[in-house]
Amino acid sequence: MTRNIDLNSDLGEGYGAWTMGDDAAMLQIVSSANVACGFHAGDPLAILATLREAAARGVAVGAHVSYPDRVGFGRRPMDVTQAELTADVIYQIGALQGLARAAGTHVTYVKPHGALYNTIAHDARQGEAVIAAIREIDPTLVLMGLAGTPILDRARDAGLATVAEAFGDRAYAPDGQLVSRREAGAVLHDPDQVAARMLRLATEGRIEAIDGSTLSLDADSICVHGDSAGAVAMARRIREALVAGGVAIAPFAGVPA
Amino acid sequence: MTRNIDLNSDLGEGYGAWTMGDDAAMLQIVSSANVACGFHAGDPLAILATLREAAARGVAVGAHVSYPDRVGFGRRPMDVTQAELTADVIYQIGALQGLARAAGTHVTYVKPHGALYNTIAHDARQGEAVIAAIREIDPTLVLMGLAGTPILDRARDAGLATVAEAFGDRAYAPDGQLVSRREAGAVLHDPDQVAARMLRLATEGRIEAIDGSTLSLDADSICVHGDSAGAVAMARRIREALVAGGVAIAPFAGVPA
Amino acid sequence: MTRNIDLNSDLGEGYGAWTMGDDAAMLQIVSSANVACGFHAGDPLAILATLREAAARGVAVGAHVSYPDRVGFGRRPMDVTQAELTADVIYQIGALQGLARAAGTHVTYVKPHGALYNTIAHDARQGEAVIAAIREIDPTLVLMGLAGTPILDRARDAGLATVAEAFGDRAYAPDGQLVSRREAGAVLHDPDQVAARMLRLATEGRIEAIDGSTLSLDADSICVHGDSAGAVAMARRIREALVAGGVAIAPFAGVPA
Amino acid sequence: MTRNIDLNSDLGEGYGAWTMGDDAAMLQIVSSANVACGFHAGDPLAILATLREAAARGVAVGAHVSYPDRVGFGRRPMDVTQAELTADVIYQIGALQGLARAAGTHVTYVKPHGALYNTIAHDARQGEAVIAAIREIDPTLVLMGLAGTPILDRARDAGLATVAEAFGDRAYAPDGQLVSRREAGAVLHDPDQVAARMLRLATEGRIEAIDGSTLSLDADSICVHGDSAGAVAMARRIREALVAGGVAIAPFAGVPA
Repeated sequence: MTRNIDLNSDLGEGYGAWTMGDDAAMLQIVSSANVACGFHAGDPLAILATLREAAARGVAVGAHVSYPDRVGFGRRPMDVTQAELTADVIYQIGALQGLARAAGTHVTYVKPHGALYNTIAHDARQGEAVIAAIREIDPTLVLMGLAGTPILDRARDAGLATVAEAFGDRAYAPDGQLVSRREAGAVLHDPDQVAARMLRLATEGRIEAIDGSTLSLDADSICVHGDSAGAVAMARRIREALVAGGVAIAPFAGVPA
Repeated sequence: MTRNIDLNSDLGEGYGAWTMGDDAAMLQIVSSANVACGFHAGDPLAILATLREAAARGVAVGAHVSYPDRVGFGRRPMDVTQAELTADVIYQIGALQGLARAAGTHVTYVKPHGALYNTIAHDARQGEAVIAAIREIDPTLVLMGLAGTPILDRARDAGLATVAEAFGDRAYAPDGQLVSRREAGAVLHDPDQVAARMLRLATEGRIEAIDGSTLSLDADSICVHGDSAGAVAMARRIREALVAGGVAIAPFAGVPA
Repeated sequence: MTRNIDLNSDLGEGYGAWTMGDDAAMLQIVSSANVACGFHAGDPLAILATLREAAARGVAVGAHVSYPDRVGFGRRPMDVTQAELTADVIYQIGALQGLARAAGTHVTYVKPHGALYNTIAHDARQGEAVIAAIREIDPTLVLMGLAGTPILDRARDAGLATVAEAFGDRAYAPDGQLVSRREAGAVLHDPDQVAARMLRLATEGRIEAIDGSTLSLDADSICVHGDSAGAVAMARRIREALVAGGVAIAPFAGVPA
Repeated sequence: MTRNIDLNSDLGEGYGAWTMGDDAAMLQIVSSANVACGFHAGDPLAILATLREAAARGVAVGAHVSYPDRVGFGRRPMDVTQAELTADVIYQIGALQGLARAAGTHVTYVKPHGALYNTIAHDARQGEAVIAAIREIDPTLVLMGLAGTPILDRARDAGLATVAEAFGDRAYAPDGQLVSRREAGAVLHDPDQVAARMLRLATEGRIEAIDGSTLSLDADSICVHGDSAGAVAMARRIREALVAGGVAIAPFAGVPA
């Protein structure tokens, strides 16, 4: 029996003369690209180049929407109103849809970025604003969120499809939550260990928690990073381990037409 | 025999706490709204409000695309590359399309703004970049340009539909070009005079040039301003004169579905 | 016996083509101008014009520093790091000092704006970052803060001079805190009532709280608004009442040289 | 007899999460740092870190002022008004002066960046606007410009001190102008050749033009780049050759106090 899993990564995060990560390398590894939409990163020309490469490789495209905070790279919590957030998310999705059309592909999902991602995982007010944005611009778009957090239930209750993701390089608490980066052992650095954990997750739906207990985790996508040479190598190692273990890497929602 | 003509105006030009013009008043006057896309003006929430009002009133929506120069309001010529300009224009159109969808309407045309408008009227390099953008995101979008300028021919040669516009409050040279704002008499201030000129244009296709000669001008849309109380009053006067003269005010491309 | 008091207002809040408030009118009313520094409002050219007018009228200049959030007008709380905030505040003060020098005046105080103002009134972490910024760029700058809040004590403990301000158009709780805008009666609209309250504050150091009790309030500056015709009229009424009551209107730190 | 020369480089060009170049390495090579002021690159926190390092190493600090075009990295010509440009330049110099004060150093010169640098080399209108900015904020600041271009004469005529710079890695035409990058041979890639040319320039005031003729070039500073590993290596090679040849590397205006 074959199991499918999706690998996703944050791409298109250059800005003008500044580059970030190695999009060309990552697009050979992942099946889904979370593409910046200009609010935390990504200028139109750089985004377009990434989308063209994603289209050429059959990699699915998601809108990596953010708070409007370029200098903070969208990593700083902002207390925006629901109306502001809904409009900001629609704007970003629309912009990426337009660029995707020009690149011969289309947007299939939405993954909030950085502080917005963390906030809506639990915060109902901002979560509802993001859900409203998706419903208003295109209710067939899938919302990607952190496995085990309330935003996924809220989105499904509102009629949206969702996909839960796990983080390859992060430790999990026994209750299925990510261990905070401020705690020791929160980030895993050994590619072989991470690859083995992700293979087990993909084939068994289980992962070892930080206390040694075994945890059930329902995730259809694994987030990998590409912002350093080491990160790219780890992502490649995860892919190889999955493929060697009989797991097919494919976009969670099917290959884009 | 009835003649149709379109009235267009620049709308959605607020930004955050700053407002500009009276969109609600203008949407009762015009048939087409050139809506800012965020590069020279317009934040997502303000744009969305304008789009909802346009949808409610059956006013057609155009993407008022600009150079990325908010502090300069898109009025300063910039020597951008073709690739940058094409991507910037696609991004803006896409963002507006997304917001328009959320507002229950859609974008039917593209009108470059400010310095970009003036530059592409004659400059082939930047003009081709804008044409490429429209062809790549949606070749059914109509390009609005200044009556009598080469951009309209270039766009048609590239397979795009175009609409030529005249300016109600501007004097014309005998060769059909606008008289430069730096010259005396370039801007007309008398609402009755302007209204009479526009009625003649709509019914006869003619307008009196600054030297008193009569000029043939082929324009399917008239640009009116709404950035001051006087401007709104003049726009209203033009509409009234047209209607009284038997001219129907309607979007050049038909009422949006 | 004459009592002095300072009147301050937020000025220089235009941005490019967008205007806000009537700086020329307000500079005839106030003795201190909180001038935007470009992060929530204010482009260099507009700021310079306001500074020149302030210099011509002998109005003291303060740096109205903000979070980097132009589209949100600095009104949205942001969870920035201390290091980011300190550097952002230094940058803004320096920019305004440079423009002030060009305008023939100089910056004498710092007043945080909007969400930053509210946050540092109580939050020690961000408050310390602002204090550090002032100490690093120029420890002779005075910090303006809300009368009765901990930031003023923190700043004095760190060796800075401070000035406490009261709000003319706001109701006070019996404990000296501002009544939240979300509560009924929080904002006062009657110019005569406001003027009488401010005269009493300036001469007696007392103000009536929302429950009718009398409150001691130690404030050396009164904040007045200029963002609407009504606001300008109220500010003028306050000034007239103070002057008629024998109170001199003057910058808290003396007239700028 | 010892000859002094200055080595300058563009630094502080990161922006938020994005880095550019290796400032720490370059600050061991150069005697003057052209530090970004936020308009084409540089966020306050990154600028401050670079300034602290420059202060620690006794490297002189210049304000690397730019058009307001972050996404274009200040490389795109913009047709700004004189008043806008003057205010923008004052703002940037002031901001850097503030950060420099916090870092324990101060700004001694101004070097326009990118498209602004190229434009003012010859364009009187924009050149005068930059000169006015320096005169208004601090007439003791030195203007750095391209050796042999009119801006240096204009600045001296206006009473400013100037410093002329040469480019180590660029070919010169027989008339002393830089060979355009669009022409073959315009950029030199051999570190030894470049180092030898710069040593000759520093000791003899002469350089070989692209046609083999010998050219007199009056330059007190040499611009070196640090935006790649190869660029850093070439800069280091130039420094070594100069020192080995008996030339002292020092800020053109003396070591900052």
